[in-house]
Amino acid sequence: MKVGGVSYRSIWRDGDRVGIVDQTRLPFEFHTLRLETSEQVGHAIRSMQVRGAPLIGAAAAYGIALALAENASDGNLEHSAEMLAATRPTAVNLRWAIERVLARIAPLSPASRGRSAWAEAEAIAGEDVALNLAIGGHGLELLRAIANRKGRVNVLTHCNAGWLATVDVGTALAPIYLAHDQGIPVHVWVDETRPRNQGLLTAWELSQHGVPNTLIADNAGGHLMQHGQVDMVIVGADRVSADGDVCNKIGTYLKALAARDCGVPFYAAVPGPTIDWSVNDALREIPIEQRSAEELLQVQGRTTDGRLDKLRIGTEGMAAANPAFDVTPARLVTAIITDRGISPASHQGLAGLYRDKAA
Amino acid sequence: MKVGGVSYRSIWRDGDRVGIVDQTRLPFEFHTLRLETSEQVGHAIRSMQVRGAPLIGAAAAYGIALALAENASDGNLEHSAEMLAATRPTAVNLRWAIERVLARIAPLSPASRGRSAWAEAEAIAGEDVALNLAIGGHGLELLRAIANRKGRVNVLTHCNAGWLATVDVGTALAPIYLAHDQGIPVHVWVDETRPRNQGLLTAWELSQHGVPNTLIADNAGGHLMQHGQVDMVIVGADRVSADGDVCNKIGTYLKALAARDCGVPFYAAVPGPTIDWSVNDALREIPIEQRSAEELLQVQGRTTDGRLDKLRIGTEGMAAANPAFDVTPARLVTAIITDRGISPASHQGLAGLYRDKAA
Repeated sequence: MKVGGVSYRSIWRDGDRVGIVDQTRLPFEFHTLRLETSEQVGHAIRSMQVRGAPLIGAAAAYGIALALAENASDGNLEHSAEMLAATRPTAVNLRWAIERVLARIAPLSPASRGRSAWAEAEAIAGEDVALNLAIGGHGLELLRAIANRKGRVNVLTHCNAGWLATVDVGTALAPIYLAHDQGIPVHVWVDETRPRNQGLLTAWELSQHGVPNTLIADNAGGHLMQHGQVDMVIVGADRVSADGDVCNKIGTYLKALAARDCGVPFYAAVPGPTIDWSVNDALREIPIEQRSAEELLQVQGRTTDGRLDKLRIGTEGMAAANPAFDVTPARLVTAIITDRGISPASHQGLAGLYRDKAA
Repeated sequence: MKVGGVSYRSIWRDGDRVGIVDQTRLPFEFHTLRLETSEQVGHAIRSMQVRGAPLIGAAAAYGIALALAENASDGNLEHSAEMLAATRPTAVNLRWAIERVLARIAPLSPASRGRSAWAEAEAIAGEDVALNLAIGGHGLELLRAIANRKGRVNVLTHCNAGWLATVDVGTALAPIYLAHDQGIPVHVWVDETRPRNQGLLTAWELSQHGVPNTLIADNAGGHLMQHGQVDMVIVGADRVSADGDVCNKIGTYLKALAARDCGVPFYAAVPGPTIDWSVNDALREIPIEQRSAEELLQVQGRTTDGRLDKLRIGTEGMAAANPAFDVTPARLVTAIITDRGISPASHQGLAGLYRDKAA
């Protein structure tokens, strides 16, 4: 996507290094970083300089390529793969991407592994963009149908599942960008998404692309739905079970409940690699990341004199808990928008589209 | 309640003036203010130096007493009453308290109106404390029943309906304080309550009283309920319809939906004056205050060097919407904890307890 007229992906190969957009400084400053080691990739994922299930998958794939350049021994490779896989537990794309690169290089001689790892990471990144464009193409028709009926579409989204959360284009935002580009009048209600405020990233990237949007507190979506101000909800996902349960940013479940109660359709937009065919009981089996209480008690922003700074909004000794994801049961999901089409949130539906993946 | 060993109410008569706790500086600084004019009372309500439905009712009652001292003419009285009633639209207690003082002084000669207005304001404040203690006494039994079964009680609450939101004791927190004082092991999950972060007030006042509590993002409650970590939800209300619909802080509806979905009982704790017997269709008839977008884009806290300051968390030109309340339909409310007992959320139940009020 374009920033100030220049096209960017959220991650790219930069010679023997990896370029990223530092998302911890957005929406305040657009700043790119060059990652030189696999450890720096690990840090970038942990600190959320890169975030979003598809993007952290691609980042970890590049991390394997960097690890091989540092030390091509099997021992180091294994160590680096485990370090990268352990950065964040919930998104399935992370482990999927690492295993894909490892499987690709396993049969090769040590001398050709490095080049192959870079190529596979590039392939994962490129495919992500293609998958997201396919999601956008399928999802676009849902927006068009509403716009044909009502003259415009109000979409609510939670967290950031835009180009910043993927290599490019986005998952939940892909149908919105494509609809906007085709002249369909679309407006987006953007959940702030406490405690990390990824809604600010969403508002920023939508505005960069000229898509009208309004930031709201995470508390507000239900009220807007009760009053007919939301035509559809689209979210991304960090993992979708074979049965169509959607694990996504904490708070997604609450919006799905409100959508069901108000008769608003609720969609998750996900590429194939986000579906975990091995998960049966999503509520019990998907590990939910518990992040630092500090994320809740400290807020980043601009001071009155323009500096980027942090404020403590809690007081000394205040206890806080910070689960980062929740699971929305398939029964609350109208459909899953995938790169292969729109599927009911069910094993039958998903397996029908992904016969080659669903064992 | 006690702060540093000293007993405070959230509002009190201070000679011919009115004392309040400045809630815009909490939880960072405990600071009291002296209001000298009815206009200062209006400002305190609008700026949320005082907030919470029962407290703004009491504050407005004191505001009428101050208005009479400024200028006892009927014209000024009417003007001041309208100014105070217009400060915030959603809580019914505000208009109720003003009308109660006006009705009390109407038959009196101008010379005795002032003293009568003060007395009525004091009566409203005193009754509020008594009503809240009664709410606590009834609600306490709900906590005791759970503790008897499970050994402890985990309560989730949204916004602040503690002593800071009332004259003293609180509504939603009254049963919690009374349970804690009786040795029932109670822990409270405290919703942050964006955008004004009243959860920080709740965490602060619970901690002052020694009640264990944990701050969570507004997004987290559903996930906690899915995993059996919430035994009951108790919230306050700004207005309850005769049919038991609960208008409360934005986001309450989402928690009620999750409670229903997870089989967790959901209670609103309200004193009689919060019930609006004239409202039939709460979703359409109760005016929902739309507050400034700035509340979402600016956050208050402590800088690294300890100053109280504000940060802008949005960027220039970011659009935001800020509805302050929502309506939870009676069908999602397990029961209403009132000062007269626990009632089903229905006209029959409420009218049974308040035969003298329900026309």
